[in-house]
Amino acid sequence: MNTLVAVAIAPFGVGDELSEHVAKAVRIIRESGLRNETHSMFTEIEGEWDEVMDVVKRATFALAEAGIRTEVVMKADIRPGFENMMERKVKVVDELLAER
Amino acid sequence: MNTLVAVAIAPFGVGDELSEHVAKAVRIIRESGLRNETHSMFTEIEGEWDEVMDVVKRATFALAEAGIRTEVVMKADIRPGFENMMERKVKVVDELLAER
Amino acid sequence: MNTLVAVAIAPFGVGDELSEHVAKAVRIIRESGLRNETHSMFTEIEGEWDEVMDVVKRATFALAEAGIRTEVVMKADIRPGFENMMERKVKVVDELLAER
Amino acid sequence: MNTLVAVAIAPFGVGDELSEHVAKAVRIIRESGLRNETHSMFTEIEGEWDEVMDVVKRATFALAEAGIRTEVVMKADIRPGFENMMERKVKVVDELLAER
Repeated sequence: MNTLVAVAIAPFGVGDELSEHVAKAVRIIRESGLRNETHSMFTEIEGEWDEVMDVVKRATFALAEAGIRTEVVMKADIRPGFENMMERKVKVVDELLAER
Repeated sequence: MNTLVAVAIAPFGVGDELSEHVAKAVRIIRESGLRNETHSMFTEIEGEWDEVMDVVKRATFALAEAGIRTEVVMKADIRPGFENMMERKVKVVDELLAER
Repeated sequence: MNTLVAVAIAPFGVGDELSEHVAKAVRIIRESGLRNETHSMFTEIEGEWDEVMDVVKRATFALAEAGIRTEVVMKADIRPGFENMMERKVKVVDELLAER
Repeated sequence: MNTLVAVAIAPFGVGDELSEHVAKAVRIIRESGLRNETHSMFTEIEGEWDEVMDVVKRATFALAEAGIRTEVVMKADIRPGFENMMERKVKVVDELLAER
């Protein structure tokens, strides 16, 4: 089942500059082979549910298994029969707004 | 790794009364044997990561495999070395507020 | 417009025991006079949009104005024509599951 | 207080093709004058808390005041003393990953 997620993985207890730990998680996502994009609040990943959730787990555990309290915030959109949603959803909204 | 999540699973395209479909997802969570509580915006589940994510998948797929566009919003808290967080977190805050 | 929210307000950079700061935010919510419930991952608040958002702002700023990096995760449900959603939504799901 | 948010505003009860209604919300955000970016799962907005929340309210009410059940999912990052976080956060992570 094709699954588009936006996920944010963050550490508590390492100070308020989170980027080093966020980068560890993002690196695992980028090396997954799944389509992904990192923005300022979430990283988007698209693929089959099991593939996506395996990457989310490995990225989360890269922090948690180092003993860090780790927060995961995730929003997923599963629309049966649709693929390439990461690209399509933005394109459709942009086209609707260009028409006006 | 003990994992506490709050998850909301919602259908699009079935009208704006979502309760029938939400109940299908909640039933799967309740029958999982994992500790859980349903509130008005999220259902909380606590257990090992793999156990929790298996339940989230089955609850999501109960809708998605019926052809329904399904949204999952999830927030997880993984704190190494801590368990029974669903109960403990509320208790600690209540105790702090009772002291004042 | 009646608005039901679940909100989680969390500090970064104060260690990984967050309860003291979470309690500050929860206290402001409890003193607001709006209906609210605190669970392990979110606090629910129900009221008019402006009332609810004023409380969310004051609870957030209690941390941020102390110089703390503050995260707010919020999910809102606005259903025109419905009130008492914090109670009603859980009741409807429970009734559906009791019928089975 | 500079505030970076990612927000998703979605309608229930209008079928499972949401783009027309999402576009109405995105148009209000784009016309706000605040820095913003729309991705497939969230639209990011950065500005002062009151400015950002005013735009989120107007975008939400564009749907809710038309009688539509409306969901708002939002994650905010308030880091005192920092600005231009929408750009900075991605840049810092990209630089850390380029070093490896």
